[in-house]
Amino acid sequence: MKLDKIQNLLGYKFKNEALLINALTHKSCKKKHSNERLEFLGDAVMDLIVAEYLCNKFKDMNEGDLSKLRAALVNEKSFAALASLIDLQNHIILSSAEENNKGRQKPSLLSDAFEAIMGAIYIESGIEKAKEVAINLLKKEYENINLKTISKDYKTRLQEITQATYGKTPQYVLISSKGPDHKKEFTMALMLDNKEISSASGTSKKEAEQNAAKLAIEILSKGKK
Amino acid sequence: MKLDKIQNLLGYKFKNEALLINALTHKSCKKKHSNERLEFLGDAVMDLIVAEYLCNKFKDMNEGDLSKLRAALVNEKSFAALASLIDLQNHIILSSAEENNKGRQKPSLLSDAFEAIMGAIYIESGIEKAKEVAINLLKKEYENINLKTISKDYKTRLQEITQATYGKTPQYVLISSKGPDHKKEFTMALMLDNKEISSASGTSKKEAEQNAAKLAIEILSKGKK
Repeated sequence: MKLDKIQNLLGYKFKNEALLINALTHKSCKKKHSNERLEFLGDAVMDLIVAEYLCNKFKDMNEGDLSKLRAALVNEKSFAALASLIDLQNHIILSSAEENNKGRQKPSLLSDAFEAIMGAIYIESGIEKAKEVAINLLKKEYENINLKTISKDYKTRLQEITQATYGKTPQYVLISSKGPDHKKEFTMALMLDNKEISSASGTSKKEAEQNAAKLAIEILSKGKK
Repeated sequence: MKLDKIQNLLGYKFKNEALLINALTHKSCKKKHSNERLEFLGDAVMDLIVAEYLCNKFKDMNEGDLSKLRAALVNEKSFAALASLIDLQNHIILSSAEENNKGRQKPSLLSDAFEAIMGAIYIESGIEKAKEVAINLLKKEYENINLKTISKDYKTRLQEITQATYGKTPQYVLISSKGPDHKKEFTMALMLDNKEISSASGTSKKEAEQNAAKLAIEILSKGKK
């Protein structure tokens, strides 16, 4: 197996290539050395790397916003994108059944293998090296890492939540618009299944909707606890 | 403030004591430098330390059991216990309102401050030092770190979940006992609010209850997703 390409894209050369092969091996191969344990470790490695990176980059950001940003960076979709940067889809090792099942394209498999590779680098070379590799990839994938570009869109996030949890899409209803034309204030209610979940104001309908969606995310996530 | 005792118990002397004070300061003080950001970082530090420790200790354990063990070690209750080992309850810095509210005894505050201290040690001295401190404390608190002693008690865990989520305690009902005296098989149903959640068998009522509780934890946690 040619492992040069992936190592070039990673910017990291494994001293022990067996460790890289281990990280690339999906459990469907039923090999004793699948990547599940490395993934378990790599998941924690990425959590720490991203937490530290954000703490250093945003010296005055509160914990709530740091958590939001991390959640936007540390998830299956994001890791699958990082996996694509290093051509993981052409390197993971699958059973033929999983291959026929389009496993090579599955975000979960790609994300898991990416975490496993980060776990492997951590084992072999420690946290500083793992940081260097991961931050490089994150910077390639995200032009700007900040709250505005990464997690501003509360409406999209809320819709993902309500679709997954209730199979419903939120509706926004204008409650009132007040004030003179140059200083209007709009209030929108957010309805789910004809029940009002939240309402909020803003200087445009769009802003009021975003504010209501943000509130609804908080309300719904508290309800779950 | 006397910081010698806590540093002795930690087995770590801060070069920069302001960092330790920061880690001890609860947000109720409304100081700019509360421990929330350090806690955010320390949470990830502990996750990685425990993940790596378990991977090294249990070379053949699968990812599922590693995750279970980590969940048993990395949680509010466990961290509050580690906090007690270093006398954190007498060192955290609270507002007088939070003080009157018995904040000093709250597991959540103690756990948060413990994480913040681990974050502070990581910032000041890196992952190896943080590992040394954390593993020492974990070993003091848990005589034996293994699946049997740490996460065998599914009934207790289930009860914590159902109390927190539904405010109810599960009930166990004997469904059947079969077989000769020396080889009895008991089947117990687990009821929540008069609804059967799961049922399971075992060679004793107790074992059947544990098996039913284990199953119920899986069922309830799937329902939440």
